[in-house]
Amino acid sequence: MELRDTQNLFKYKPINEVLNQIIEKSKIQMNVLEIPTIKSYGFILAEDIKANKNIPPFDVSHFDGYAVNSKDLASASITNPVLLRIVGKSDHKESFEGTLKSMETVYTTTGAKVPNGADSIIPLERVRAKDDGYIEVYSPVKSRDHITPMGSDIKEGEIILKLNHVIRPQDVKVLLELNILSVKVYKKPSVGILSVGDELTNCIEEIHQKKLETHSLILSKMIEGSMGIPYNVGIVQDDPKLIANKVSLCLEKFDIVVTIGGLSLGIRDVTYKAVSNLKPCDLLVRGIRVQPGRVSSVAIIKGKPIIMLPGHIQSMFSGAFFLLLPLLKYLNHLPLTPFIKLKAVMGEELIVKEWIPFKRVRFVKLESIGDKYIAKPILGDSSMISVLVKSDGFIIIPEGLEIIKKGSEVDVHLFPYPC
Amino acid sequence: MELRDTQNLFKYKPINEVLNQIIEKSKIQMNVLEIPTIKSYGFILAEDIKANKNIPPFDVSHFDGYAVNSKDLASASITNPVLLRIVGKSDHKESFEGTLKSMETVYTTTGAKVPNGADSIIPLERVRAKDDGYIEVYSPVKSRDHITPMGSDIKEGEIILKLNHVIRPQDVKVLLELNILSVKVYKKPSVGILSVGDELTNCIEEIHQKKLETHSLILSKMIEGSMGIPYNVGIVQDDPKLIANKVSLCLEKFDIVVTIGGLSLGIRDVTYKAVSNLKPCDLLVRGIRVQPGRVSSVAIIKGKPIIMLPGHIQSMFSGAFFLLLPLLKYLNHLPLTPFIKLKAVMGEELIVKEWIPFKRVRFVKLESIGDKYIAKPILGDSSMISVLVKSDGFIIIPEGLEIIKKGSEVDVHLFPYPC
Repeated sequence: MELRDTQNLFKYKPINEVLNQIIEKSKIQMNVLEIPTIKSYGFILAEDIKANKNIPPFDVSHFDGYAVNSKDLASASITNPVLLRIVGKSDHKESFEGTLKSMETVYTTTGAKVPNGADSIIPLERVRAKDDGYIEVYSPVKSRDHITPMGSDIKEGEIILKLNHVIRPQDVKVLLELNILSVKVYKKPSVGILSVGDELTNCIEEIHQKKLETHSLILSKMIEGSMGIPYNVGIVQDDPKLIANKVSLCLEKFDIVVTIGGLSLGIRDVTYKAVSNLKPCDLLVRGIRVQPGRVSSVAIIKGKPIIMLPGHIQSMFSGAFFLLLPLLKYLNHLPLTPFIKLKAVMGEELIVKEWIPFKRVRFVKLESIGDKYIAKPILGDSSMISVLVKSDGFIIIPEGLEIIKKGSEVDVHLFPYPC
Repeated sequence: MELRDTQNLFKYKPINEVLNQIIEKSKIQMNVLEIPTIKSYGFILAEDIKANKNIPPFDVSHFDGYAVNSKDLASASITNPVLLRIVGKSDHKESFEGTLKSMETVYTTTGAKVPNGADSIIPLERVRAKDDGYIEVYSPVKSRDHITPMGSDIKEGEIILKLNHVIRPQDVKVLLELNILSVKVYKKPSVGILSVGDELTNCIEEIHQKKLETHSLILSKMIEGSMGIPYNVGIVQDDPKLIANKVSLCLEKFDIVVTIGGLSLGIRDVTYKAVSNLKPCDLLVRGIRVQPGRVSSVAIIKGKPIIMLPGHIQSMFSGAFFLLLPLLKYLNHLPLTPFIKLKAVMGEELIVKEWIPFKRVRFVKLESIGDKYIAKPILGDSSMISVLVKSDGFIIIPEGLEIIKKGSEVDVHLFPYPC
């Protein structure tokens, strides 16, 4: 054994520098797929979508009612109703293709074409339909009343969805209404998750001798939240050869490989050693300027990134948040910073005297008081799962700051919520 | 045909009154299930979870290092290192069960038991391990340094998760770490979605003659977001008998039935008629005080709610938001109002002169400028899908208000985002 301290193994690089290097040196092919629109929910568009037709395709009625010419009704009143002759019907099955003459009307259903010669729709309930094929109208109407004009929803040629837009349910709907039955989207990056540790098991029968591997549950949901596809590859023993073999296999199958555990300086901490010996190696970073998670490391082997995360749960969370999620967002053409942040007020003073030149993550519970959210720090050793269980999200304390005063405003990053 | 206007068919009741009636009159059995913890993500706990053991179960080391007695090291310095004899090893496989004597140390891995007689851990890299079974220590240590105390993460007997808590990934993890392999959760309410309309099809080959039914895509995601399970039952023609039959079948299979379309006053609008004739009927409500969506109606047949939603997309959205989602949340024991609301500033004046005594929904697009979000109204007829596509969420304009001034603060309800 040696005095490892003097070797200064961890170089603790700034996160942005590391991310830029990963992006520069990795050669992940993010392919474009053409998929059925009906299955496109949650994918990211790899093309602008231009409307290929007007919606509605012609002027349509907003209500079930009668298509009229407003000029015919100028004098209508309760005491002097105007009689209009019903000359046809326009519905979704068949439009009325004739032209309305003076003192004529056509029964027109919601969404059906407004006949030529008509400039207004009177809702059904505002007229009296007589048995002799006439209706009585009791008041004048305005031109264009209750008519939804051609192209008023969507104009032919308009770009209705832009490149890099995340497809929501309403977007699927509009694509289908435009008869666009397939779309080009980005293939989601695949992430192989490999857990390192003799002490771990996936087997529920072994929970009394070993520790059930459950970190990957949390990591998988984080990956899905940044539009990656997680694959839990399982557990590998604390053996550099086995780790190297498993990581090599993962490099062939996945766009990104993530290891959890085996990353500090103990005798069993062999992940970095195993990964750093793989060839050809395009980048090696050991340590990032964030706490918890400072021992998180990166290698790029054969153009593919291997993100090595620490085994303590909060450290894993923080390492993944700062290294893995931005990489996934970059590959997915998503903005790196979240659009929605929650402003909260610190409910108590928070003193953070350690790792002062680093970014530091602290977990918080939120309370809603009146119009404000109060953030209360939930503190505890980075190995504690209860901190994540008792929190709603986290704040990032910038480099150099040692005290966050009670009452000061903070941005809270919320944990994803299952739904 | 008759003068329907004078019959005053729509009674437009306040939403809270309708919701209270639905809750009072419906007899939905929300069963409790016991399910494997590993499959419990996204379910709602139907029990308090009490920790059945301490985590960690004894004092453990936070680092790979050496367990020491801090008293032995009071005089240690670079020039006068203290020598400690290594007398054993404590790791995840086997704890060191002896008691440390003066000037002895035990190699202790991360998470392993701190031996009796030790009160501090020195990280590996801060000592020199010699070949003769001794280590050299160069500075004093504080008592309890780098020791994670027994029960410091979770205390035996502590309620770690409360009744009605939505299970997140970290909650699954903590349950498994406590060896709790199954949990009691509420069965999620099932919702059958029935689309009404001769003009609709589910068949992509028919899109040139008919309209593809796509409203249910949006409704399904809304239901999932309130922890319901949507079942798309398909399309039924505008025929009261067929509708009544299909709704009756759905009542046998699902906790809640939702119909879309066929709800205003046209000749084809037969949904309400069909449903209101079903027996035994415990409640009938026709119309709610919200716009769009005012013709949304409710029946309770055989103790089960049937929520009838209008066919215009924005009206369906609004009706579902005010009637169906609160019902699902109530059945799921979730708070009816969302915990997280987004404050934004109106980017332009919004005048809403119609349906003034009603709550009104208006869709908005958000822009982030500096620290603020600017909400810009996206307006258009309630049939327009483009309004939903161009928006990020919506605001609710309270009864009586006619103008929302530019610069005033509003709460924005965000659309769910796929991830």
